Amino acid sequence: MKNNYSVGVDLGGTKIKIGLVNSSGRIINKISIDTFAKEGPDKVVSQIKKGIHTLLDTNKKTIQGIGIGSPGTVSLKKGTVENPPNLPGWDRVHLGRIITKEFGLPTFVENDANAAAIGELIYGAGKTLNSFLMVTLGTGVGGGIIYNKKLFRGENGGAGEIGHITIDHHGPKCKCGSRGCLETYLGNNYLTKNVIEQLKKNKSSLIYDMLNGDLKKLNPRIIHEASLEGDKFAIGVINNVGTTLGHGMASIVNVFDISTVVIGGGVAGFGKPLFAAVKKSIQARVLTPLRPRIKVRQAKLKNNAGIKGASSLVLYD
Amino acid sequence: MKNNYSVGVDLGGTKIKIGLVNSSGRIINKISIDTFAKEGPDKVVSQIKKGIHTLLDTNKKTIQGIGIGSPGTVSLKKGTVENPPNLPGWDRVHLGRIITKEFGLPTFVENDANAAAIGELIYGAGKTLNSFLMVTLGTGVGGGIIYNKKLFRGENGGAGEIGHITIDHHGPKCKCGSRGCLETYLGNNYLTKNVIEQLKKNKSSLIYDMLNGDLKKLNPRIIHEASLEGDKFAIGVINNVGTTLGHGMASIVNVFDISTVVIGGGVAGFGKPLFAAVKKSIQARVLTPLRPRIKVRQAKLKNNAGIKGASSLVLYD
Repeated sequence: MKNNYSVGVDLGGTKIKIGLVNSSGRIINKISIDTFAKEGPDKVVSQIKKGIHTLLDTNKKTIQGIGIGSPGTVSLKKGTVENPPNLPGWDRVHLGRIITKEFGLPTFVENDANAAAIGELIYGAGKTLNSFLMVTLGTGVGGGIIYNKKLFRGENGGAGEIGHITIDHHGPKCKCGSRGCLETYLGNNYLTKNVIEQLKKNKSSLIYDMLNGDLKKLNPRIIHEASLEGDKFAIGVINNVGTTLGHGMASIVNVFDISTVVIGGGVAGFGKPLFAAVKKSIQARVLTPLRPRIKVRQAKLKNNAGIKGASSLVLYD
Repeated sequence: MKNNYSVGVDLGGTKIKIGLVNSSGRIINKISIDTFAKEGPDKVVSQIKKGIHTLLDTNKKTIQGIGIGSPGTVSLKKGTVENPPNLPGWDRVHLGRIITKEFGLPTFVENDANAAAIGELIYGAGKTLNSFLMVTLGTGVGGGIIYNKKLFRGENGGAGEIGHITIDHHGPKCKCGSRGCLETYLGNNYLTKNVIEQLKKNKSSLIYDMLNGDLKKLNPRIIHEASLEGDKFAIGVINNVGTTLGHGMASIVNVFDISTVVIGGGVAGFGKPLFAAVKKSIQARVLTPLRPRIKVRQAKLKNNAGIKGASSLVLYD
């Protein structure tokens, strides 16, 4: 197994990141190229091919297979990608078949949030777990569900949309069309906007000094650092995020009876105080028998989680 | 198969209902006896035995097995029931083993809400479905999830607690300890109380006449009948219930990617207008690709659904 390598392709709206990954999830080499999404699926597919060729030409390794994490709904059997957001013109693309044909290698395509969950299962925080709820706090709030060591895909591979559970049915409008989705509170754009607004009323916060007043530079790690210095405002922000996430996750824990939550993505940069707040919030809300079983863990795949998650598809069956 | 019979035991806090059921889910004979829950598990178990003996003595049929639908958390492997609400003193009872020993028949124990979902799968609205979300609107709001023809049990058999997903995290306190659970809006007690309060302000509603002013006699069927007569108040109540249920179900549909909802229990007596309102509400909230796929169906197991669901456990594997 030690000499087995796989290729992971993280297909994004702006960049395609491609990495050569060993069987323990370490990236040996990687490249990043433009997606050219606006030029349509043919161009994007040719960029993917070009990128993989470049990577393989410079690394003469025996490759076990190629994994692709893609936005949108993915049919596992057919290897097709349907209507991915940020990739215009993709009505339905047989991405798996095209890449298999080009490289003569088994190719596995999966939704990127699902690939992230499989990545944690194969290489990361889920290695020793049978079942967990993976939530990724980034620009949006994504998710993937592992049940008995398998990805729970639902009827059409769309399961795990944790960002679109409602915590307040009369809450703020979400871009999905619903109201009060977890994403409207915790998606990076909303969250940063909210925190900046509150910061303006809390000018004594350490965060002001740390940013030299340039609030645009705000990010979760700075809030975490300020909280470690005892900054009350920063501690409050982290507690709020954790409590809110917990309110949503409690519903999910109740319906799935899966009691471990793995948190990844940029907002996970809030660190331990976040995980503690999430745990406390879930425990306060979930049905009594579940309370002692609740565990909250940080995702282990941090940088390049997209590449690693995609490459893990090759090792997953 | 036609000559195969099974016994279904619906273990409730007040009554134990036991039926002899044929392989298409028809009850051939049934009895109802007191649970004597307050006298503890030994007494309850002896009541179950007594009831089954009585039923079998009067019906000389070849029995394939015994199914028991029980409140509380059930371990399928061990056939144990843990801390069922309304059954005091049941720390952990090996119900399956005890009944198998007594009758020399395979015995299957399952949580009652899960048994109801399996009942629909084997005999009812789910016969032709691969996957569905079953929700039972009764005193509480229960649920069970069928995925690829199998019950989704979660880590400890507790999955499917649809009544305890939050639709408003700052909403009314639920007896489970959380806030804004679906059950706090739709459980029969809360619902009836709310509707009676509103009725007092809407004395022109037909419902007043239909009840001869005795609001205590209010039930879902009367509200349904009034709505069929065009009573605006009744139509409003049904729409509200359907819309609220839809707000909760949309979250569940998003995370499970299961797009068929089967509704049973007393409140399902609201009939077609309820199912239409639920469907409309889910479609307005769920992620775009799921919208055209949403189906809402009425449960087929109505009277004695508890007995039928329990007996179906024998046919399910």
